[in-house]
Amino acid sequence: MTTVRVAVAGGSGYIGAELLRLLLSHSKVTVTGVTSERLAGERLDRAYPHLRSLTDLRFHELDAAWLADVADVVFLALPHMESQRAVPVLRQRHRKVIDLSADYRLRDASDYATWYGAAHIDPAGLAEAVYGLPELHRKAIAGAGLVAVPGCYPAGAILATAPLIRGGLARLDGIVIDSKSGLTGAGAQGRKADPMYLYTEANENVQAYGLASHRHTPEIEQELGALAGGSVRVSFTPHLVPLNRGLFTTASVPLATRMSTADLAGVYREFYAGEPFVRVLPEGARPTTRAVVGSNYCDVTVVADPRTERAVCVSAIDNLGKGGAANGVQNLNILFGWHERTGLEAPPVYP
Amino acid sequence: MTTVRVAVAGGSGYIGAELLRLLLSHSKVTVTGVTSERLAGERLDRAYPHLRSLTDLRFHELDAAWLADVADVVFLALPHMESQRAVPVLRQRHRKVIDLSADYRLRDASDYATWYGAAHIDPAGLAEAVYGLPELHRKAIAGAGLVAVPGCYPAGAILATAPLIRGGLARLDGIVIDSKSGLTGAGAQGRKADPMYLYTEANENVQAYGLASHRHTPEIEQELGALAGGSVRVSFTPHLVPLNRGLFTTASVPLATRMSTADLAGVYREFYAGEPFVRVLPEGARPTTRAVVGSNYCDVTVVADPRTERAVCVSAIDNLGKGGAANGVQNLNILFGWHERTGLEAPPVYP
Amino acid sequence: MTTVRVAVAGGSGYIGAELLRLLLSHSKVTVTGVTSERLAGERLDRAYPHLRSLTDLRFHELDAAWLADVADVVFLALPHMESQRAVPVLRQRHRKVIDLSADYRLRDASDYATWYGAAHIDPAGLAEAVYGLPELHRKAIAGAGLVAVPGCYPAGAILATAPLIRGGLARLDGIVIDSKSGLTGAGAQGRKADPMYLYTEANENVQAYGLASHRHTPEIEQELGALAGGSVRVSFTPHLVPLNRGLFTTASVPLATRMSTADLAGVYREFYAGEPFVRVLPEGARPTTRAVVGSNYCDVTVVADPRTERAVCVSAIDNLGKGGAANGVQNLNILFGWHERTGLEAPPVYP
Amino acid sequence: MTTVRVAVAGGSGYIGAELLRLLLSHSKVTVTGVTSERLAGERLDRAYPHLRSLTDLRFHELDAAWLADVADVVFLALPHMESQRAVPVLRQRHRKVIDLSADYRLRDASDYATWYGAAHIDPAGLAEAVYGLPELHRKAIAGAGLVAVPGCYPAGAILATAPLIRGGLARLDGIVIDSKSGLTGAGAQGRKADPMYLYTEANENVQAYGLASHRHTPEIEQELGALAGGSVRVSFTPHLVPLNRGLFTTASVPLATRMSTADLAGVYREFYAGEPFVRVLPEGARPTTRAVVGSNYCDVTVVADPRTERAVCVSAIDNLGKGGAANGVQNLNILFGWHERTGLEAPPVYP
Repeated sequence: MTTVRVAVAGGSGYIGAELLRLLLSHSKVTVTGVTSERLAGERLDRAYPHLRSLTDLRFHELDAAWLADVADVVFLALPHMESQRAVPVLRQRHRKVIDLSADYRLRDASDYATWYGAAHIDPAGLAEAVYGLPELHRKAIAGAGLVAVPGCYPAGAILATAPLIRGGLARLDGIVIDSKSGLTGAGAQGRKADPMYLYTEANENVQAYGLASHRHTPEIEQELGALAGGSVRVSFTPHLVPLNRGLFTTASVPLATRMSTADLAGVYREFYAGEPFVRVLPEGARPTTRAVVGSNYCDVTVVADPRTERAVCVSAIDNLGKGGAANGVQNLNILFGWHERTGLEAPPVYP
Repeated sequence: MTTVRVAVAGGSGYIGAELLRLLLSHSKVTVTGVTSERLAGERLDRAYPHLRSLTDLRFHELDAAWLADVADVVFLALPHMESQRAVPVLRQRHRKVIDLSADYRLRDASDYATWYGAAHIDPAGLAEAVYGLPELHRKAIAGAGLVAVPGCYPAGAILATAPLIRGGLARLDGIVIDSKSGLTGAGAQGRKADPMYLYTEANENVQAYGLASHRHTPEIEQELGALAGGSVRVSFTPHLVPLNRGLFTTASVPLATRMSTADLAGVYREFYAGEPFVRVLPEGARPTTRAVVGSNYCDVTVVADPRTERAVCVSAIDNLGKGGAANGVQNLNILFGWHERTGLEAPPVYP
Repeated sequence: MTTVRVAVAGGSGYIGAELLRLLLSHSKVTVTGVTSERLAGERLDRAYPHLRSLTDLRFHELDAAWLADVADVVFLALPHMESQRAVPVLRQRHRKVIDLSADYRLRDASDYATWYGAAHIDPAGLAEAVYGLPELHRKAIAGAGLVAVPGCYPAGAILATAPLIRGGLARLDGIVIDSKSGLTGAGAQGRKADPMYLYTEANENVQAYGLASHRHTPEIEQELGALAGGSVRVSFTPHLVPLNRGLFTTASVPLATRMSTADLAGVYREFYAGEPFVRVLPEGARPTTRAVVGSNYCDVTVVADPRTERAVCVSAIDNLGKGGAANGVQNLNILFGWHERTGLEAPPVYP
Repeated sequence: MTTVRVAVAGGSGYIGAELLRLLLSHSKVTVTGVTSERLAGERLDRAYPHLRSLTDLRFHELDAAWLADVADVVFLALPHMESQRAVPVLRQRHRKVIDLSADYRLRDASDYATWYGAAHIDPAGLAEAVYGLPELHRKAIAGAGLVAVPGCYPAGAILATAPLIRGGLARLDGIVIDSKSGLTGAGAQGRKADPMYLYTEANENVQAYGLASHRHTPEIEQELGALAGGSVRVSFTPHLVPLNRGLFTTASVPLATRMSTADLAGVYREFYAGEPFVRVLPEGARPTTRAVVGSNYCDVTVVADPRTERAVCVSAIDNLGKGGAANGVQNLNILFGWHERTGLEAPPVYP
């Protein structure tokens, strides 16, 4: 059986590492190239001792033309601004691109300029890109050449609230989203040694950051707005909590109409019927990040709060899983028409 | 110098342990009794090896009359329903009582019945009790015989939002409060061995609980309502995050009027001026639970979100500190007219 | 393709959970039964939310005859003393048994009586059992009907030191073995809610236990003694350190002859040549448990200490991996002549 | 009451931070100066948010003459090589010096050259320095001008084994010491942002380092040798385990004569009788780092292993406590003839 050749650009961060873990045991692909500016020339298994005996690859320098030479599909786990430099080269060579940076997530180039502080240099790519959340955009992904994989916070926030928003069941003012992420989420690119990410500082600590200003906000609003058919503003606060993997999202959504928890659960079940990676939990069961670690699952539940006429919508994902690399692999499977579970069969790692 | 005799009822849980840690090095008091149903007869330092060489006390069985015999002030770190059995005995004997259970926090006995599922059996005590948050009720505490120390979540939530609420600066609908607690908060009483609290289950895990139903909700609403001079409803969601100590609260409060972050900070600074244990952080500095562990401090900050016309109000406390035992000691100091920092001088333990 | 039917007895502990995780995605087998006294009748995915959508099985009560009905191979993840009651029934029915308890690891029934405080009731089984460490006993395993999978500490200790011991390079007096285990190791069976295993007690804590008395000691001595061709006594101390998975072993072995680190490394490389799951690290690289989590790998390294005429031999395994369930699956693969990596292809989960 | 003026040189690392925490609430001293090359000019409470409201000091650049101007006693929490540049200046000005670096711990300058790779530039200081372990050298410390506070590993290792060594009860060949340290131990100086100390790398990980080569080895051998009255060689292996504070030492010591656990415990009790900070645990009680965090305590226990004719000697300390800063404060108290518990009264922080 011939396999598809895949490459990973930006292999030295945690998203890149997770892509490698998944792709090296994916039955339909062969990993043919990995880049890292910092580690170019070094064997992968020196930077990643867990991969010892699993690959003889070496990091290559970041070079879009070379990537187009060695691979049919290229995953980009690059910092934003760098993806938009590589994508035009790859697309011109007709390579499929699965971008995990923020560069192609916002449809409106002016939103990009506002939140990222720089003009977008590849408007053609922006026009072509599909937002890689299969639960919302499966058909478009199937025919896409360029997929923009959602940010980890948007993935959790959108999946937690989409059924309410699309159904017109929510009031669109007053949505509050509070997220708690493991440390591989922050600073995932390049394993930066910022003092704030030191064990001694992050351990036994909880902190908020990006108060009223996190760049994932417009991404959430874009997708929820598209579902609602109108403008949505969310108050979004991300937090760092002391774990490696896991992202828990708690959304408080004002209800447009009185609904019970059972009613809400029914809406969610219908919305996610047939989805291979979204698990709507039974009433009373609470999502935990523990139950999804290492996997592409998103566990969700919803509870009515009649006192405040709101719904509490919660989701649990692995920020490197449905919040990044594993979701990227699901997109790959859709692009090629493979079973969506291919390479994602392994159950979550518990405990 | 003669010292005041203090006793701790319910010494086998984490709140009791923290009270003992603080009281054993408090210069104005002598610990004369500690009770535990489960450990009665056993030396304290067998259950608490960290106290070895610091005390020769033994746990006594729970007996209110005995407590009145041995102590001038009694801290109750008992489960709810048990405090209200002990308080009448102690008050009849004119002992001052600092209750850390939920039994005397809600002024309205019908609220108690609604949220705790049982009638309150000591309405006289309820009428006498003062809510032990010095930042709001210092004068009343000074003359009190019975102090109801706030729950950990209410302590964090009220201190994060009080300046906005009292000033009429907030809209009272749509307040959303999201809290993240260390594991000593949940199951603090008795060090319960529920599987959910096992290391292997709680480590590398985040979960929400008490969705739309946590018993600290009415306590928050009571105090914020009193500040607002009207009814307040909050959507409150507590979470467990993997740390021993620490409670981080993120409140999203709709603003009644347009204010900048600097405006809001000014309001907070004025509100907490002179408070020995509330630190309003400078703009740009973010509270972390790391900075308050082991202490009675509450670090707060507030940021305006003009996009949503809301304020993000955050606070960080030690759930056993300002969220429990240390705050109880501050109340003790106020009851006796001592300097409020007495026994609470030690800086937070970092890291 | 027909698959082999496998069952897991004792599915409610962490070893059982890990077996299920691995077997549910093993291409050659179908899981046909799982037992748990405590959870009999309950769906697996209620106790194990991570398995939701992956299985519809329910726990069955422990019944050896039923296990023989439903399965061709039975994994026993039972407490010691219980395995030896089930094994005779299963063997009489010609079922292959992979036992993860301690019951069949010690060849000498009197050792069992000494260390476990009870007579062994299945001497025939004891005579038949093969010690399931493929790196030492591959051929015997291939033809076995009953495999006794090593304890987690012995697996790490034996693999760290075997090349020195077998080669006659070590002095057999004065071997000291110090092991550090994650919390899934202790109390792995049944997820016991002992207070010592509470998050709040085990987090930020290190402790030794079983000083000079741990039951894995004779197992280590038996296997090293067999390699040495003589009696071996080891001073063994196990520790609990705050992590879920991982077992790090540090052995100090007196050298019989002066050897350099390079000499020692050569011995190890030769000893483990061709082993699919033992990785002898290059000089200067240090094993970390991080690099093997979730896998069947054992990373080892050895360093000469000429000052003390000793070697420092270290190994890192996942206590649920090479220290238990994954090693059990490797034994299964050997029993059936499958490629040894079958079902164990997934790289370690980093980070 | 006039207080003694103390300064801390090297205030930006964890040892410096812990000294400040302790000295700011020490009743006999006033902190008059703190240096940091990196943070010179910055307010302490900006680098250390936990100290907000507790001090208005600013970091000063490292300048020994300035330190001599502002303080009567100077704590040096500097990297090795830097202390020996500051000490001569301070001693010439008759300031008392408590050095927490490695520079004055080894009596023999040639040992220093061997292990630290450079000649010592202050032999006069070396001749004057007293090894600051009060349990061994209390009298000498009382009259000293320059105290060399033990490294964290030597503190734990020496206290675990000293009673056996001094009593001639141990055989001096074959001592094996295995230590497990929290992350504030490694990289304590300057809060270095080495990738190895990132949360994501250190969390859920155990690793050994400095195999057969750690610089604390000669320090342990020097002190045990002095106790034994002869040369001692130890096989020493340090490990990093995922916690912030805590250092657990497990020493395996060959016995010169057959002794029971009770015999050994008697020896330890006698050796440590009257010591304010060493707690010999009752038989069956096991030291845990949990019980000493935040304090100057060292908990020790000893168990006989008649099978191997060895003793297992274990100790638990806080690496920043008895392993560094708190022990430094105990030395300060001895230097000035104060009660040894002054400033160290607070019980350990549990949990």
